[in-house]
Amino acid sequence: MKIAVLGTGAGARCHTARLTELGHHVIVGTRNPEATLARTEPDMMGTPPYRDFHAAHPGIELHTFSEAADAAELVISGIDGAHAVQALSALPRQALAGKTLVDYAVPYVYQQPDQVERPWPTPWGVMPRLDPVDTDSLAEQIQRALPETKVVKAFVTQEQETVTHPEEFAGGDHTMLVAGDDADAKAAAGELLRAYGWRDIVDLGPLAAARGMEMYAHLHTAIGLALGTRFGVKIVR
Amino acid sequence: MKIAVLGTGAGARCHTARLTELGHHVIVGTRNPEATLARTEPDMMGTPPYRDFHAAHPGIELHTFSEAADAAELVISGIDGAHAVQALSALPRQALAGKTLVDYAVPYVYQQPDQVERPWPTPWGVMPRLDPVDTDSLAEQIQRALPETKVVKAFVTQEQETVTHPEEFAGGDHTMLVAGDDADAKAAAGELLRAYGWRDIVDLGPLAAARGMEMYAHLHTAIGLALGTRFGVKIVR
Repeated sequence: MKIAVLGTGAGARCHTARLTELGHHVIVGTRNPEATLARTEPDMMGTPPYRDFHAAHPGIELHTFSEAADAAELVISGIDGAHAVQALSALPRQALAGKTLVDYAVPYVYQQPDQVERPWPTPWGVMPRLDPVDTDSLAEQIQRALPETKVVKAFVTQEQETVTHPEEFAGGDHTMLVAGDDADAKAAAGELLRAYGWRDIVDLGPLAAARGMEMYAHLHTAIGLALGTRFGVKIVR
Repeated sequence: MKIAVLGTGAGARCHTARLTELGHHVIVGTRNPEATLARTEPDMMGTPPYRDFHAAHPGIELHTFSEAADAAELVISGIDGAHAVQALSALPRQALAGKTLVDYAVPYVYQQPDQVERPWPTPWGVMPRLDPVDTDSLAEQIQRALPETKVVKAFVTQEQETVTHPEEFAGGDHTMLVAGDDADAKAAAGELLRAYGWRDIVDLGPLAAARGMEMYAHLHTAIGLALGTRFGVKIVR
């Protein structure tokens, strides 16, 4: 299948590499391909520049968001939460209309420790806050901005290395959660997930459930910091 | 040990019954014992009146919040999130000073569907919102209100029937999370949890981690609605 992965960060690269390995035709989208390839330094999270990944995967095309989405049957958005609605709304209508878009971003707002009234310390500073939170979600904002697109929230309750390689924990015996208002779009996301190796996929129902999925980010981070390692989450019943 | 369970709701009854079964001396606290025993109807969640539980457990004393906390070495607060800070702040200082208080409430604010801009439908109406959320937590509010008390957030990431009977899922092989600023208080909570049957207890560190624990409530509810049953959550690594 022709799949656009929008975004060039660490999570997007996990999907890009794994989907290519699974035989899909992946087109990576970025704001400005020249600028993306010109960067030579790691980002603030220590992720190496995309040019390294690009050089290691010579078959994977890098285009603008618009070109990538336009060429694809299914779109995965790894655009960070602070920019996703604006960047996706700016695309020509036909690039996304009628398509399934899987969003996995957390709508983080990064904060300086000295600007926060009650900081929650982390090794890299303080826990970001979420916007939107509780009574709305990034996924719903995207859906409202793109009424002709079938938005699915998925992947976000595990790290993207884990999403694309579930077998790393408990032989793949843990749980992936999805939500969305369109059953066919959720089925398409489910097919990708089964190809990644997921066997336990729980459909949480309407896209409003993305609120809970995004808000879980703080707990996931806290567990990761406590364990000092990645992990999987299994719903036992 | 003398343990006060503050609150007479369904969750509080789970702890009351189980701790009594485990040989502890449990004193239940409520705002007004006479009023609590006078109620004859189920509450809005369908929980039978406390008088039924009281009659079935004739050895378990029911007193005021103040009397119960005053008599106890350790306090479990099952006071609902909307009233916990006010109710606990109103107690005489010596009732809680120096003691471990385990809080497991979610700070729900219940909403009428027609007053909500973007309702997240549930079988009983709409998902409540949380207050505080994201940049503060109920547990931290309680800690700020009671600086001489050692507040631990625990139990909240599983339902209280599951907390008190972890063996119901995967033979007890799933995960309990705790957070708090006092190591001794977390150790005391951990002892109770091991007596309940928990073997995998992850300490998330400072009480600020309660933000993530409380915010997980929405995801937990969504999973429960999707599965139509209670469940356990296991961190696999």
